[in-house]
Amino acid sequence: MNTLISNDSKWILTEEGTDPETIRQNETLFALSNGHFGTRGSLEEVGRTKNYSHSEATLVNAYYDSEPIQYGEWAYGYAKEHQTVIPVPNGKKLTIKLDNERFDLEAGKTTNHKRQLDLKKGILTRTFTWENTKGHRIDVKIERFVSYDYPEILAQKVAVTPHDDDCALEIVTGLDDLKDLGQASEIESNDPRVKTQKGRRFRSEKIKNTQNKMLHIETNNTNLNLIVGEKNQFSSPSADYSTKGNEESWEVKAIKGETVVLERLVAYSNIFDDNSERDGIAQRTSTLLNEASAIGFQELKEKQIKHMEEFWDMSDIEIEGDDELQVGLRFNLFHLYQAAGRDGNRNMSAKGLTGEGYEGHYFWDTEMYMLPFFLYTQPKIAKRLLNYRYTILEEARNRAREMAVDAGALFAWRTINGKEASPYYPAGTAQIHINGDIAHAIHTYVKATGDKRFGMKEGLEILLETARFYAAWGHYDEKRNGAFVLNDVTGPDEYTAIVNNNYYTNLMAKHNFKYAADMVEAVLESEDELGQEVLSRINFKKKELNNWKKAYENMFLPYDEEQQLTMQDDSFFHKEVWDIENTPKENFPLLLNYHPLTIYRYQVNKQADTVLAQFLFSDEFSQEQKARDYEYYESVTTHDSSLSRSIFGIMASDLNQMEKAYNYFMDTALMDISDLQSNTKDGVHAANMGGTWMSMIYGFGGLRLVGDTLHFKPRLPEEWKRITFKVQFRHRVIKVSISKEEADYQLIKGEPLVIKHFDEERYLK
Amino acid sequence: MNTLISNDSKWILTEEGTDPETIRQNETLFALSNGHFGTRGSLEEVGRTKNYSHSEATLVNAYYDSEPIQYGEWAYGYAKEHQTVIPVPNGKKLTIKLDNERFDLEAGKTTNHKRQLDLKKGILTRTFTWENTKGHRIDVKIERFVSYDYPEILAQKVAVTPHDDDCALEIVTGLDDLKDLGQASEIESNDPRVKTQKGRRFRSEKIKNTQNKMLHIETNNTNLNLIVGEKNQFSSPSADYSTKGNEESWEVKAIKGETVVLERLVAYSNIFDDNSERDGIAQRTSTLLNEASAIGFQELKEKQIKHMEEFWDMSDIEIEGDDELQVGLRFNLFHLYQAAGRDGNRNMSAKGLTGEGYEGHYFWDTEMYMLPFFLYTQPKIAKRLLNYRYTILEEARNRAREMAVDAGALFAWRTINGKEASPYYPAGTAQIHINGDIAHAIHTYVKATGDKRFGMKEGLEILLETARFYAAWGHYDEKRNGAFVLNDVTGPDEYTAIVNNNYYTNLMAKHNFKYAADMVEAVLESEDELGQEVLSRINFKKKELNNWKKAYENMFLPYDEEQQLTMQDDSFFHKEVWDIENTPKENFPLLLNYHPLTIYRYQVNKQADTVLAQFLFSDEFSQEQKARDYEYYESVTTHDSSLSRSIFGIMASDLNQMEKAYNYFMDTALMDISDLQSNTKDGVHAANMGGTWMSMIYGFGGLRLVGDTLHFKPRLPEEWKRITFKVQFRHRVIKVSISKEEADYQLIKGEPLVIKHFDEERYLK
Repeated sequence: MNTLISNDSKWILTEEGTDPETIRQNETLFALSNGHFGTRGSLEEVGRTKNYSHSEATLVNAYYDSEPIQYGEWAYGYAKEHQTVIPVPNGKKLTIKLDNERFDLEAGKTTNHKRQLDLKKGILTRTFTWENTKGHRIDVKIERFVSYDYPEILAQKVAVTPHDDDCALEIVTGLDDLKDLGQASEIESNDPRVKTQKGRRFRSEKIKNTQNKMLHIETNNTNLNLIVGEKNQFSSPSADYSTKGNEESWEVKAIKGETVVLERLVAYSNIFDDNSERDGIAQRTSTLLNEASAIGFQELKEKQIKHMEEFWDMSDIEIEGDDELQVGLRFNLFHLYQAAGRDGNRNMSAKGLTGEGYEGHYFWDTEMYMLPFFLYTQPKIAKRLLNYRYTILEEARNRAREMAVDAGALFAWRTINGKEASPYYPAGTAQIHINGDIAHAIHTYVKATGDKRFGMKEGLEILLETARFYAAWGHYDEKRNGAFVLNDVTGPDEYTAIVNNNYYTNLMAKHNFKYAADMVEAVLESEDELGQEVLSRINFKKKELNNWKKAYENMFLPYDEEQQLTMQDDSFFHKEVWDIENTPKENFPLLLNYHPLTIYRYQVNKQADTVLAQFLFSDEFSQEQKARDYEYYESVTTHDSSLSRSIFGIMASDLNQMEKAYNYFMDTALMDISDLQSNTKDGVHAANMGGTWMSMIYGFGGLRLVGDTLHFKPRLPEEWKRITFKVQFRHRVIKVSISKEEADYQLIKGEPLVIKHFDEERYLK
Repeated sequence: MNTLISNDSKWILTEEGTDPETIRQNETLFALSNGHFGTRGSLEEVGRTKNYSHSEATLVNAYYDSEPIQYGEWAYGYAKEHQTVIPVPNGKKLTIKLDNERFDLEAGKTTNHKRQLDLKKGILTRTFTWENTKGHRIDVKIERFVSYDYPEILAQKVAVTPHDDDCALEIVTGLDDLKDLGQASEIESNDPRVKTQKGRRFRSEKIKNTQNKMLHIETNNTNLNLIVGEKNQFSSPSADYSTKGNEESWEVKAIKGETVVLERLVAYSNIFDDNSERDGIAQRTSTLLNEASAIGFQELKEKQIKHMEEFWDMSDIEIEGDDELQVGLRFNLFHLYQAAGRDGNRNMSAKGLTGEGYEGHYFWDTEMYMLPFFLYTQPKIAKRLLNYRYTILEEARNRAREMAVDAGALFAWRTINGKEASPYYPAGTAQIHINGDIAHAIHTYVKATGDKRFGMKEGLEILLETARFYAAWGHYDEKRNGAFVLNDVTGPDEYTAIVNNNYYTNLMAKHNFKYAADMVEAVLESEDELGQEVLSRINFKKKELNNWKKAYENMFLPYDEEQQLTMQDDSFFHKEVWDIENTPKENFPLLLNYHPLTIYRYQVNKQADTVLAQFLFSDEFSQEQKARDYEYYESVTTHDSSLSRSIFGIMASDLNQMEKAYNYFMDTALMDISDLQSNTKDGVHAANMGGTWMSMIYGFGGLRLVGDTLHFKPRLPEEWKRITFKVQFRHRVIKVSISKEEADYQLIKGEPLVIKHFDEERYLK
């Protein structure tokens, strides 16, 4: 059992001792990243021991290679290539020798081994005492962080204090040997959630004539280039310095009590396509290493702490009444913040940068699960995440054409470069709801931030192209009194595939039509120049506006009058109900234990689907309707997806079922720390972490954006005394403090505004 | 343009001259086989020339190798291994040299090149005159047949007559070089209908110490063994005989006008699993070659002709009024007869043994398209084809368990060894109608032949296990007043996948329930020992009988009351109609040019589906209903499947739309000769050939088996004067002769019986 949370601190995860059972999971939990790159929390001596080595991976966001997807049977329009994020050279690798014996956890004797991830500071610290076979001992402390101020920099400090005089102490660093590079971790698995690509995936070459050690790597097939550089400073001038291949070594005669320190900086440059930029980028990276080295580890660390302070000041959620949960919650926010690409061209993987699961792909998870956190606490990052979609809009247009849809754009279900990378279309391309998800996120972003510029430019163009796609995919079904229908789609629930009129999809499309129509009308009315440019460039025709309005008004939303239940799709209630209760526990998740046709044939949900739709538009439904649907869909849901429980938790709050809300929340909040899905080793469940934030703010805080107004319907579970958080809204910062008795809303920054607390208006100034 | 049919003969296909354009197609058309093995109609000097070599393939029925199927994304229960029939050593390879120049079509000058396939005799003859660069000439005649009397034997006779004295004439034979063996033809194609497996697929070894040249081959992964032997007799004792590696050579000094003859026999043994049987089987095969050689080519040929005479006597269909069609029709019957496995353990591939298309797999094609021909003209072969299903029943039970269905059996959609080999379940495993297809074939076989022994043993067991599967797959849908429904299936029409209540599937399942219930009641009533043994062995429970009766009575059959149309499935009419007329011609077949979701989203059929159901049970529907459904479904059908036109043709006859029936028939009958599907090069369309027979007998002859009585409703198209054919029915042979004015039914053999001609009963004696 992994017990990382202690009562000592509300900010620190602590691993005491070492345990082969939890090493893989903790590599994920202790991963550090900054949106540009990330590195798993592996031990510095990784690869040395049988029991303690697993998968070191340093991942640069969107640094991927491609290979043709092999199909048992091909069909037209299938995704052509895998896109697989690949580990780059490991900058953490370190060898410590005493009397020429190499330290690892299986050599000699290690005591007091402790690792701590300080969430408040963004720093991972490891300390231990090692005694070699001769009985000589050293104390070791290693600090590591991935810099936010210098996003290319991995900073490390190694301090070794001998207990004895006269023995030989040696520290050796170096990026991986060239021969080991580009070898994606070999994971043998049929599990579709695990990356299974293998083999050497890049070429590498040392760059000569630079001051620091610089390596150029280039992927085999995508030809993406990266510079990796290293700069080390050793504290003892008397050290015997040598180099061998990639390695640098410092050897000193140990003096009892006298600490030697190595400060190590490794830089991962930005990705570049054009090989001819290589030497220039290598030079700039080398210069950056010099600059950072001049600043020194201590000051870099202080900057990091300051950056994190600012982050926490805006984004923290405080809970009174549950200290363990407090750490778990912060852990989630910490990882969320770490994972987001910040340059507008890259996004946020389903596993962040903590593992190779899902091949580093971006999914709808970003918009529907992770974005709300950023939207309300870090809106600049939210904008950049949305901007990524704009950068792949042309690929989405191409995809629509491949699907024989002659208008608009269809975003890839899973992708890095914008092209569809899902090899299984029933739970890939068929999930056309991703268009509506992105449209909804854009709409919400513009509403919540007031960023009209984005709304009139990138946002508008995406909204119109996604609406166009839906208009062309669907049709008016005469057999349904001319209702607008969307056939042969898959909703969020991947245990029900290729159905007609998935409720969620239809509702998202309906709103997409509305967003598009409203925006176009706003452009026409305001004669906004940016907006007009978009309309003209994408050849907007006025009849499209009418089409969208008509489709909006006539959208078919399946409903069972007899049972007074919303229907997940046309045929859901015609299927047998899966006997969840009597299904052996080891047969979950169902997807690994039953054929798709077995699963699809039953009323059984992997995750929230109709309930998710009702959460997103909760003001459009009566409480009675939501309660009926909730009760029913909960009874057929396995929560085999990590995207499920948070939504059920939020809707439990909405329905004032606080005990249920609390239980769902606790599973949500501690999912990775408790390894609830049994696959945290492959990376964190970033969407669920976003779900944690949503559970707090949308669930217990009851936040909804209705029209132009923030509504709160706060409800606390029995177990807590108070929660406190901040939200940003149109250049304002509002601090919300909720106890069982009262709710306090405080305007910290910005112009006065009116919010709603349940049905009561409050004026904040 | 390929013009193989001349006015000279109603029995012979003639290729005059040589044409690189048609060489691939004619390799298929001129293929010879006998159910055990087959060999494509390739030129003897195959591989020698650029323009005239394509894909030699000699295929032994069910001699296949396996490799894991690669999936872009795996899911539970997916088919695990490809099963790929692989070419065995080519026994036709031959080199003729004159003055040490090797003959081929691009060397020297070839004149009077002619190949003739004599359908009446089952013999392929090639003749030509070759002049080498020195101006020396030879006449060559090569005869080839695949023996029915000695099913392991390929017999060939090569006769060379020099025009000049004194030049050196040499004939060289030999199985392929060892190094070339086991190399499956390399076909680079994404077309799912083409076999795409590549690479060396068997090990080979010469067997020593046998009198004749014997080769042992063993597949790489399936470890299937085969002995291939060769025995040659050269006519001229003065020939200079030599051997080199695998080759034998005879060289003589040419004497003008003096023909030298090589009689060549190649034997392909039965497949065996147990390697230790190798030497025994090699010895027996060698002895067989000695026996056959002692008989001599001429007598073997006479036996072949006699065998074929008996075949044609029973199975021929004569048409007066269209000689071209007469040959085309016979060509189809010839290939059908050639293709069927005859040992009860092997079946009939979709391409027969004429090509590697569809990897040599067996499909529902056998039962629904090919079996009727055998059932009514060669019932012993029909029984053996059905017996194959019994040999794979245990695999079908396993497959049902893999699909989490705890009772009964689900036959593989495509297979050789009984395991599912379709890598695309929406058009594979989802086609659970194959169970009902097999049940229907068994029912019809037993009814038409009176073979009660098969009915009470193998037949009964299959009927019960298929019914059990349907009972477990389906359920009673309360939302449909408790009707029995089958969800998430695909019907015959592969352009509509994963639907609920496919009409065809439901109707087949309904009848399967009835067949099973009736049989069980017959067993219980008669206390038949064989039947009781089956019930006891498969642990039949009486409540199953009631379940089947209830499911039969309550089977849901979708129908649109408003339009008075049978619905292909629950949602078919909710989809948009595909605009077939305005789809560019080059975009057919749709499956190669549109994503599955594009196709599935429309009302568009690849092939007969509802119309097929109405043909099979045509007495259960009113003519008006059939006419409405026909008109509608015809309008949405592309006939992209070769299984489509024949059914539409038959139903046109049923509806007395004779011009339409004629047009469909002409496309059906000449499909491969005209290369209508543009892929005859990959093998014949055996199912369509069966469809040709059905079109004649079920269509124009109007034959139906209603209850225990044969009904005929003959209708001839304008273009013909008379058709004549025979059918076997319960140990009787009936000769039917139909003209526009009258129909004559003559009992050739067996006990008197009553048949029906339209509504009139006729007593035949």
